[in-house]
Amino acid sequence: MASAPQRSPLAPEAFPDLPVIDGVSFASAEAGVRYTGRTDVMLAKLAPGSTIAGVFTQSSTRSAAVLDCEEKIKFTSDAGAAIIVNSGNANAFTGQDGRKSVKAVTNAVAQALDVPEARVFSASTGVIGEKLPHDKIEAKLKELSGNLSANGIEGAAEAIMTTDTFAKGSGTTATVEGQKVRIAGIAKGSGMIAPDMATMLVYIFTDALVDKPVLQSMVAALNQTTFNCISVDSDTSTSDTLLVAATGASGIRVTENNLGFMEGLRRVMLDLAHQVVRDGEGATKFVSIAVTGASSDRDARTHAMSIANSPLVKTAIAGEDPNWGRIVMAIGKSGAPADRDMIAISFGPIQVAKDGWVNPGYKEKDAAAYMKNDVIDISVDLGLGGGRAVVWTCDLTHGYITINADYRS
Amino acid sequence: MASAPQRSPLAPEAFPDLPVIDGVSFASAEAGVRYTGRTDVMLAKLAPGSTIAGVFTQSSTRSAAVLDCEEKIKFTSDAGAAIIVNSGNANAFTGQDGRKSVKAVTNAVAQALDVPEARVFSASTGVIGEKLPHDKIEAKLKELSGNLSANGIEGAAEAIMTTDTFAKGSGTTATVEGQKVRIAGIAKGSGMIAPDMATMLVYIFTDALVDKPVLQSMVAALNQTTFNCISVDSDTSTSDTLLVAATGASGIRVTENNLGFMEGLRRVMLDLAHQVVRDGEGATKFVSIAVTGASSDRDARTHAMSIANSPLVKTAIAGEDPNWGRIVMAIGKSGAPADRDMIAISFGPIQVAKDGWVNPGYKEKDAAAYMKNDVIDISVDLGLGGGRAVVWTCDLTHGYITINADYRS
Repeated sequence: MASAPQRSPLAPEAFPDLPVIDGVSFASAEAGVRYTGRTDVMLAKLAPGSTIAGVFTQSSTRSAAVLDCEEKIKFTSDAGAAIIVNSGNANAFTGQDGRKSVKAVTNAVAQALDVPEARVFSASTGVIGEKLPHDKIEAKLKELSGNLSANGIEGAAEAIMTTDTFAKGSGTTATVEGQKVRIAGIAKGSGMIAPDMATMLVYIFTDALVDKPVLQSMVAALNQTTFNCISVDSDTSTSDTLLVAATGASGIRVTENNLGFMEGLRRVMLDLAHQVVRDGEGATKFVSIAVTGASSDRDARTHAMSIANSPLVKTAIAGEDPNWGRIVMAIGKSGAPADRDMIAISFGPIQVAKDGWVNPGYKEKDAAAYMKNDVIDISVDLGLGGGRAVVWTCDLTHGYITINADYRS
Repeated sequence: MASAPQRSPLAPEAFPDLPVIDGVSFASAEAGVRYTGRTDVMLAKLAPGSTIAGVFTQSSTRSAAVLDCEEKIKFTSDAGAAIIVNSGNANAFTGQDGRKSVKAVTNAVAQALDVPEARVFSASTGVIGEKLPHDKIEAKLKELSGNLSANGIEGAAEAIMTTDTFAKGSGTTATVEGQKVRIAGIAKGSGMIAPDMATMLVYIFTDALVDKPVLQSMVAALNQTTFNCISVDSDTSTSDTLLVAATGASGIRVTENNLGFMEGLRRVMLDLAHQVVRDGEGATKFVSIAVTGASSDRDARTHAMSIANSPLVKTAIAGEDPNWGRIVMAIGKSGAPADRDMIAISFGPIQVAKDGWVNPGYKEKDAAAYMKNDVIDISVDLGLGGGRAVVWTCDLTHGYITINADYRS
């Protein structure tokens, strides 16, 4: 691995002050799975009565830990629960040994914390194809369980980093029928995938009291417009995992479609999703792409993702070039309907194209000046219908090539 | 535009000696559409009785010339025909003026050569969104028609280049019922799209006598395993055009499914497709990706293209890193069926993974040595069925970023 990369120019100034969530405690440790001189394993313990919802990568080559979580998430229980995550080794594409490692780690955590093994969720992030040295993690469980603290969430965010250049956290309070509940979450990821180190991992906690089916349907729905709307490089991890745990410690019940809670959860999910893009490999620009006027929301997302994943659009943004011709190209190749002569394109407040050609009032120097910003908003109107979507991405720079090609990983 | 780029390290040594095709003649000229000091317009004249088949980009934002060709290709005629192509300006996303420019140029060619306007096929390649100065092309038609020569094909290949680093030609003879027919073609393209200059253009000529429907079905079928199986950067041009013209001058008739002719045509199409990849922007490696054992040929192609278009796979190849974990990732994200524990992966003769994990006999140093080659063969067996596909791509390097981001285009 290369020496620690510089903090992303798009990083927030500091890790945020997160609300403490009653019913969950955290610990982290140096297990030496691959890295030295830094923490690489985190443990979260959830009080009895917590409900847990999750969504996972759709990859057909997903990791052993993901397969295990997918089974366990179906299960409902009032018992205590735990989350154990290591960095440095993804335990992906490791054949039958991968399953054995997951079983060994989750069984050891179950014994250490006295919770059912069926309530222990694991994840691994790092190099693919190497056997996980799970004994190193097991050897740290006594230390971890002894150090569990309600304030350990920042340490947990640090322990799960791989090529991330900053620890990612987000929190808020949401109002449920006049009462406050707390939400706090952490994430790791430096793109859909980092060099040899696949994974976006997200863990969010709340003290609200939410039934499992309600929580699962909220998480699945909100995921569609948050984590599923970001792309650094179009490459999808074998290990992507999002878990949301509700401890219920506040005693405040959240029922189906509670807008206050959903808005709070959405805000935390979106903030973490944006932080992952801001730590995209080599990123120097944070880019939002809003498509309106599509035949359907689904078509709008198809166009937006085609723009977000186009290497020519992303390199133009890196070059601070308001190259709207490449956006026309990306719309054209997306496969979703578009009428060339109806398309309008803006960079920030500057409309560069409309009615199938350059806007007569467009001045290239205005758009060129706009492209020097760190945050770039691209909007496209297709003029066909009411479908809309927003996605977020970053630019494609020499930094990306350097991280992924110049070093043997 | 940046100064002329260095010839691709993957370029052939020289433009090939192409067979002369009776019934077609070529001319090229300096019209000054955008470039100076080089040719930028080519004219090909086809004798009466020629049949013409074509396939075009599927982009929904395709150019005015492509829309015009799509209409004209439906038409059958025994009259003479012509092809006129300019570089420097793509006449794409130019609103109603785009259609007027196509009409003006094709009408002027029809008059200059005394052929029906419905038999004049045009293409434009270069910058998007600027009005085509079609009068500059019309002003050169007298010179062009005076210079038409059966030997002008290399000059034609040079005139249609944009950011190409070498002129691309290929020819062969095919045996049809014991008699020889000749096939010669030219292409331009430096990726599916070049900086601001969209387009892959391909023109192939033969003296065989082939009925229009037979030629069209052959071209459409062969296109699926040649030009439709290459990708430089996953970005699709607004102007891609492939025309195949059969002059019939040899008097040798080719009937449906004639294997000798189809094999000759396939060889020329594949050679030109490979030359486009070898001139991919920033390319230093020519990569073939063969997928076998898929559930269907279609699934095999989906997996192969997912590998070919993965930025992480392409940067690993640039870094000479036998990073099979990224290939597993690309298979997993493709959307086509795969069973993680059945996948086998080889780099050239070296099997790196099988049965869902690293091959026990694999030595990383062998694969690392193999990756130093200019030509890299990746093969993947999915172990599911009989589906197979081969696609071709190049690596993703700092050169690509430099060409597409470092210069304002």
